Amino acid sequence: VNYLEQRILKDGVVKPGNVLKVDSFLNHQIDPIVMEEVVTEFIEYFGDRKVTKVMTIEASGIAPAIMLAAKLKVPMLFAKKTEPATMEREDRYESLVHSYTKDVTSNVIISKEYLDASDSVVIIDDFLANGEAALGLADIVEQAGAEVAGVGICIEKSFQPGHQLIKEKGLDLHSISRIASLDNGEVTFLKDDE
Amino acid sequence: VNYLEQRILKDGVVKPGNVLKVDSFLNHQIDPIVMEEVVTEFIEYFGDRKVTKVMTIEASGIAPAIMLAAKLKVPMLFAKKTEPATMEREDRYESLVHSYTKDVTSNVIISKEYLDASDSVVIIDDFLANGEAALGLADIVEQAGAEVAGVGICIEKSFQPGHQLIKEKGLDLHSISRIASLDNGEVTFLKDDE
Repeated sequence: VNYLEQRILKDGVVKPGNVLKVDSFLNHQIDPIVMEEVVTEFIEYFGDRKVTKVMTIEASGIAPAIMLAAKLKVPMLFAKKTEPATMEREDRYESLVHSYTKDVTSNVIISKEYLDASDSVVIIDDFLANGEAALGLADIVEQAGAEVAGVGICIEKSFQPGHQLIKEKGLDLHSISRIASLDNGEVTFLKDDE
Repeated sequence: VNYLEQRILKDGVVKPGNVLKVDSFLNHQIDPIVMEEVVTEFIEYFGDRKVTKVMTIEASGIAPAIMLAAKLKVPMLFAKKTEPATMEREDRYESLVHSYTKDVTSNVIISKEYLDASDSVVIIDDFLANGEAALGLADIVEQAGAEVAGVGICIEKSFQPGHQLIKEKGLDLHSISRIASLDNGEVTFLKDDE
């Protein structure tokens, strides 16, 4: 088990409805040591690729994304969530993203000024469950004619459909910790070869 | 002029209504070089104090806050914005924060698990204008019986009331760039002794 997995076992709390609460070190209080370990692993996996930008979605993706961007010495770009608009705007890329946890659909936006066909983007997020956020960001990268260099996730709930959906799109996904199950209030990780 | 001020002059765009758009390097696309310079200056100013936590508010405060927290080797805590609730909850600190730009009042929350009377907190944000966000965070620190070690701001609009209000509360404020005026579409900084 890696450092993030150790922290999940030590400080994560399993809640009803397959919720894993990691508020104490990942998405409310953030432990920079966890961030540094996570970024080191992303660099090992994505570090030899051509990456021009790190992209994420507000709010909890921002911390790992900016720290990775600092190591790669490229800009970080975070998508903002707005109310679904009735009218498209010409100055931005948009994608609808549904959050199953909050049961809310957001319009996720990136200004066209900061993403174009010359970009090669690593998409970063704290969690992968149904894959809506990562797929929405990949959709925006595609709209710009840019390339997804990879998708880096801190915690993947491998028993939910996100992993499969991202693989089916042909994207290179690297999740630092992959959770096989949260049954009976216990965290079980996938083995490396699963 | 420091590095942030150089970037404001080069890439900032003044919009009607005293709006300074710095989307290209501070709060949509984020340049990690700007973050590193900003953090270096915060360390110079706050580095010799006892700091147990860096605190900010989602979303654009997160990048400078996590990078400062990583240097100080302390946790970063970011307040979440929710709809104003009709009922207080016992497990969290809350403060109402009004955004003049968006004309929205949010309920800003921090879980009681992560802040207590032993904490000494540096509050970080990207902008200071009317001071609502910083004062809301200071209010939460007070509710916890903790201490505000200082308030660190990237860009202060010194012609708006936030600076004065924070000083009147007796807080130690350090803003990296202080804007005297945005009149006629031009950025004018305060001199160091103003």
